[in-house]
Amino acid sequence: MHVLVTGAAGMIGRKLVERLAAAPDALGREITRLSLVDIVEPPVPQALAGISHRTAMDLSEAGSAERLIAARPDLVFHLAAIVSGEAEADLEKGYRVNFDGTRALFEAIRLEGGKEPYLPRLVFASSIAVFGAPFPEKIPDEFFTTPLTSYGTQKAMAELLLADFSRRGIFDGVGIRLPTICIRPGTPNKAASGFFSNILREPLAGQEAVLPVDEDVRHWFASPRAAVGFFLHAARLDLAQVGPRRNLTMPGLSALVAEEIEALRRAAGEKAVRLIRREPDPMIRRIVAGWPTDFDARRAESLGFRAEKSFDEIIRIHIEDELGGAIPNGG
Amino acid sequence: MHVLVTGAAGMIGRKLVERLAAAPDALGREITRLSLVDIVEPPVPQALAGISHRTAMDLSEAGSAERLIAARPDLVFHLAAIVSGEAEADLEKGYRVNFDGTRALFEAIRLEGGKEPYLPRLVFASSIAVFGAPFPEKIPDEFFTTPLTSYGTQKAMAELLLADFSRRGIFDGVGIRLPTICIRPGTPNKAASGFFSNILREPLAGQEAVLPVDEDVRHWFASPRAAVGFFLHAARLDLAQVGPRRNLTMPGLSALVAEEIEALRRAAGEKAVRLIRREPDPMIRRIVAGWPTDFDARRAESLGFRAEKSFDEIIRIHIEDELGGAIPNGG
Repeated sequence: MHVLVTGAAGMIGRKLVERLAAAPDALGREITRLSLVDIVEPPVPQALAGISHRTAMDLSEAGSAERLIAARPDLVFHLAAIVSGEAEADLEKGYRVNFDGTRALFEAIRLEGGKEPYLPRLVFASSIAVFGAPFPEKIPDEFFTTPLTSYGTQKAMAELLLADFSRRGIFDGVGIRLPTICIRPGTPNKAASGFFSNILREPLAGQEAVLPVDEDVRHWFASPRAAVGFFLHAARLDLAQVGPRRNLTMPGLSALVAEEIEALRRAAGEKAVRLIRREPDPMIRRIVAGWPTDFDARRAESLGFRAEKSFDEIIRIHIEDELGGAIPNGG
Repeated sequence: MHVLVTGAAGMIGRKLVERLAAAPDALGREITRLSLVDIVEPPVPQALAGISHRTAMDLSEAGSAERLIAARPDLVFHLAAIVSGEAEADLEKGYRVNFDGTRALFEAIRLEGGKEPYLPRLVFASSIAVFGAPFPEKIPDEFFTTPLTSYGTQKAMAELLLADFSRRGIFDGVGIRLPTICIRPGTPNKAASGFFSNILREPLAGQEAVLPVDEDVRHWFASPRAAVGFFLHAARLDLAQVGPRRNLTMPGLSALVAEEIEALRRAAGEKAVRLIRREPDPMIRRIVAGWPTDFDARRAESLGFRAEKSFDEIIRIHIEDELGGAIPNGG
């Protein structure tokens, strides 16, 4: 099987490819070729070096998507996107990369299928940013998409196109709406959602972190490992069960910031919790107030998608996957 | 005020312009210029001939939208579209006209506003085709858009873009989701929804009509007069009341085919009803089974949008607006 991953240099893209390297049977069929694409050259895991081809390209540039699709990948993981903050700051770039780039990929598949029959599986990274406040206490699967950011708008438009192209038999598409990924590895970034990860990752590494909101803020989370699991599950899913409604809100954990902190205390003690510095930020508080807090993601659950059930589990996964299995200096 | 109407040669476009000619105060401000655009040259009512400019153009062609918007209309009624059946038969044309044409118009406004401040009101003709079965008994305002046609997909994508561009202060947009318009004037057409009008219009004119579905089919209707009223109301609406959720399901009448026929009997007698010939068509029956039957359109109602409450009223409006106030030959 030939697998194409766009956005392969991003955090989730890299972890997805690493998982394919570590578990070659993850897709149920042997991977005979792996095409990795991003705006910068993506890394290639040693185990897959012999079958991997990597390309630095902008999908929204004329001809780029056609070149990728000419090799007729059987499975496409489409993760390439610019993040919410950048899409909000630069309207043109956001629509070009997040919407036009996605459409170019979809169109390339359509045109390739016009030459000779071709029906790849396509798994698209969407986001809970397709939703906009106000929300019911638990957002049901049938809730409408009224995004309050251009990023969410671009994802919601791409979801619609994905469903229509799937209905028309152009590809077998599934859109998966990712929760906020926590704990993000790496260093603190300026994303408004960054603090949800920072207040765990930094104290676990013996570093200070800033909490800009109150502890009673509730949000919707899944670990990076769960996110990779969503992609792999979507790649193997029996789509006859899914029907024409191809965009699925992924399961997640609805939790308070206070619950994050309690789980940190259980994992790493009071010393770690004391590294969280409260610095209320009215702007971040206002942004976060518009975000969803809880979903009833029963469709995805009934289709077998799984996320964590507690922050203890999310912290354990971070320790296993990022810290080599133990908290440095014993926490 | 300078008013631009796209799709001005279409059925609703023509009726909207005729209403502006008949009721010059319909928009609350004097119309000083009227720009009428369609793929063919649209008609100009005598009363507005002095201030009207008409253009035959394809909005999706490079430069077309910019030329229209360079004149900085204060109010844009955007009705231009190809219909559902054509968008389904010709994927490329559907996306080009219904989506790219709309986006080109929106982008032209954005770029014009980049030259000097510009914030027109924009009223967009959307459709209940943004919804796809299965449905709850009454579709609430928060129900998700999972269209089952490319036409519905294109309208739903344009709705998202409209809401985002409105949120960003590029224009003051409102999307209005029209019910099935009944009684459509003219001759029977091949639209799958045509029979809803045909079985009233033709017998009222002493002609036979074909009913391809059972009498217990339920659907969602408004008269052409109500549709024009929606556009005019949306043009004057206080958008502070609307907030960021700019796409509104219009009110309508949920009725059975049997109720249409009973209203015809009351208006024109048994002789008219006998002109309806039952010719079951499995394909039309299947298409219609995927259509919405009833809405709880309370948001639009609370904002002052109004539709008919009975088929008696819909038939009366047809007699007044299309038949000069009386049924030919006394029915």
